[in-house]
Amino acid sequence: MISVPRGFSFAAVAAGFRYKNRPDLGLVVSDTPAASAALFTKNLFQAAPVQVAREQINSRPTARAVMINAGNANSCTGQTGLDNCRQSVSLAAKALGLDPADILPASTGVIGELMSMPVWEAAGPLLSETLGHSNILDFSRAIMTTDLYPKLAWRSLEAGGREVRVAGVAKGAGMICPNMATMLVVILTDAQLDTPNWRKILNNAVLGSFNHITVDSDTSTNDTVFGLANGASGLDLDRLPAGALEDMVSGVCQDLAYQIVEDGEGASKVMRIVVCGAADDAQAELAARAVGNSPLVKTAMFGRDANWGRIVAALGRSGARFEPDRVSVRVAGIDIFINGRPNQVKMDDALKVHLRRREIPIHIGLGAGPGRYSLLASDLTPDYVALNADYRS
Amino acid sequence: MISVPRGFSFAAVAAGFRYKNRPDLGLVVSDTPAASAALFTKNLFQAAPVQVAREQINSRPTARAVMINAGNANSCTGQTGLDNCRQSVSLAAKALGLDPADILPASTGVIGELMSMPVWEAAGPLLSETLGHSNILDFSRAIMTTDLYPKLAWRSLEAGGREVRVAGVAKGAGMICPNMATMLVVILTDAQLDTPNWRKILNNAVLGSFNHITVDSDTSTNDTVFGLANGASGLDLDRLPAGALEDMVSGVCQDLAYQIVEDGEGASKVMRIVVCGAADDAQAELAARAVGNSPLVKTAMFGRDANWGRIVAALGRSGARFEPDRVSVRVAGIDIFINGRPNQVKMDDALKVHLRRREIPIHIGLGAGPGRYSLLASDLTPDYVALNADYRS
Repeated sequence: MISVPRGFSFAAVAAGFRYKNRPDLGLVVSDTPAASAALFTKNLFQAAPVQVAREQINSRPTARAVMINAGNANSCTGQTGLDNCRQSVSLAAKALGLDPADILPASTGVIGELMSMPVWEAAGPLLSETLGHSNILDFSRAIMTTDLYPKLAWRSLEAGGREVRVAGVAKGAGMICPNMATMLVVILTDAQLDTPNWRKILNNAVLGSFNHITVDSDTSTNDTVFGLANGASGLDLDRLPAGALEDMVSGVCQDLAYQIVEDGEGASKVMRIVVCGAADDAQAELAARAVGNSPLVKTAMFGRDANWGRIVAALGRSGARFEPDRVSVRVAGIDIFINGRPNQVKMDDALKVHLRRREIPIHIGLGAGPGRYSLLASDLTPDYVALNADYRS
Repeated sequence: MISVPRGFSFAAVAAGFRYKNRPDLGLVVSDTPAASAALFTKNLFQAAPVQVAREQINSRPTARAVMINAGNANSCTGQTGLDNCRQSVSLAAKALGLDPADILPASTGVIGELMSMPVWEAAGPLLSETLGHSNILDFSRAIMTTDLYPKLAWRSLEAGGREVRVAGVAKGAGMICPNMATMLVVILTDAQLDTPNWRKILNNAVLGSFNHITVDSDTSTNDTVFGLANGASGLDLDRLPAGALEDMVSGVCQDLAYQIVEDGEGASKVMRIVVCGAADDAQAELAARAVGNSPLVKTAMFGRDANWGRIVAALGRSGARFEPDRVSVRVAGIDIFINGRPNQVKMDDALKVHLRRREIPIHIGLGAGPGRYSLLASDLTPDYVALNADYRS
């Protein structure tokens, strides 16, 4: 049973931006003004809805709704794209009886195409009719593009006889695919707190989750994480155990981040890479990302080959500083590389079994200091190439 | 007709390091001490032959021979690997009547396995018997691993009634594949010059060629470029047109670099990426490498899709600074993205034809300054994944 935060209503509409016979427009509305928070892509190319939503987040501390369409990213569309985005928000606001400045927009799909405004004109009344008759699962399905499954996560907690809830919805597949996908996330809670606190909590949760994943190292122009906290539980931070809301939000973000990597385009495995012993955290991140983004490591994982030669070669070119003869690598719990040398005890048979698992832990010790970083990464498969080579043609 | 520099002899021997029924040990010997030069991988993990060859290059200005085995990289093999490398050089030196310090070793192949010393013991006499009966093409074939074809390039020039020659041999496939491949290059010339000049010329040629290619962004532990200049032409720098030897060496290196990308594992295309208008050259390189290493751009090229959305998204996350509305992208001579927006004149039909070519030029203007960088990059294909997932298993 999904614990949906109270005071939120959902709509999912088959508007027809690109897909036929499936919802491609999702809306969540808070009954009351909710403390708002958002993080946006750092790509220099920023899609129109990213620009519009950023303005709204910067100009007021609350919002009432998040509206997401799938199939058209409204990116690299210039002034017309910006005008279209604002117009789409106005059309929805009018149909829903909301202030346009209270609706945070996001888009995912093909870059560089203008949105069809007649589609948006027809969508407004549909949103209004559907609102409250759809649920959070419908919403999560409406924002999918190449995702294989909808992504949800939730937490709840009782305090003082009341219950506070956090739920999140995401679409993937990771940072991958500026053409036909995007990472979009919406985190909802009925906890009661002010906007500065809410923004800090969401920011920390995102730094520790979505910023620790990679599918293919390509950051999209539309990545967005929204958070709405509407207070409908009546529970404020003072009445919750210390750090409880932070933990719930982080937990939801981490669950969603994992799902995004697991459902990365073509992915068959999730590598859980932990680097410790780096000179500092930044160097640990360099090392982890070199391994997680290495096409050779990723194809080896797909091939169920614990190819430590590829892992250490990636470490060696990562830019992290260390002494090669202090490096150790453990894959799926088995030490395969110890102090700069392969383990003389051959563990191939045991490894072969473990590498059939869907999640492969990779622990790397650099022996150079206290730095640490963890990263979730997908593998690289023929399906990834086929999906991305065939799309559009 | 390959113009092989005079005063060099070749050997190619089926020693049996890994492959059956094909030469896997190549040797080139200069009749006289040749000015020596070398560049080595910057990977922190350095294979045994890299360490041994570096010592030799640093300790004396000349060398007589380069010896390369395929099938075993002798990397991450610790002190035993170093001892084995030195022993293999001694065995060859004894059989050939050379000083061990005059033989520069290199290896390519599987990481982490010890070399078989009985194989080396048997190889010495074979090298001696074969030397002078093999040619440069035999040598280039003996050092192949996953290369589909041997890689050679050459130049010659007449001056004052004499001819000076430069020839180069390479194995690929790029910076790719620390497990089963490596970039190894040998440049030979019969020009007469001192070691400092030769090392400077080779260094500049490598910076402008092999350092401008990428197959999959993975740098190997064994990459090595050797250069031998034996003076057999009797022509020294003063008797050549200014810059002539530099141009010949650079030309040979660029030809070989191109061949390495073209024969990158699974590659079906070569992207010739030129970024101009960056704030400086370093930022141009960031932008070019982000595009050339993007799995989404690489799969789009394989799919014959001039997907500018993926190119601009890669630029936007590259770390290079620019104004998005000043960016333009030209693929295969056709402007598809102008000043931050897609070209309103659809060129899809013309593009479709051009994208069937094997080499795809991609010109990117950032409009931010005088910085420029060019990069050769292969595409990403199902064959790459299959080759690297299946290998070893």
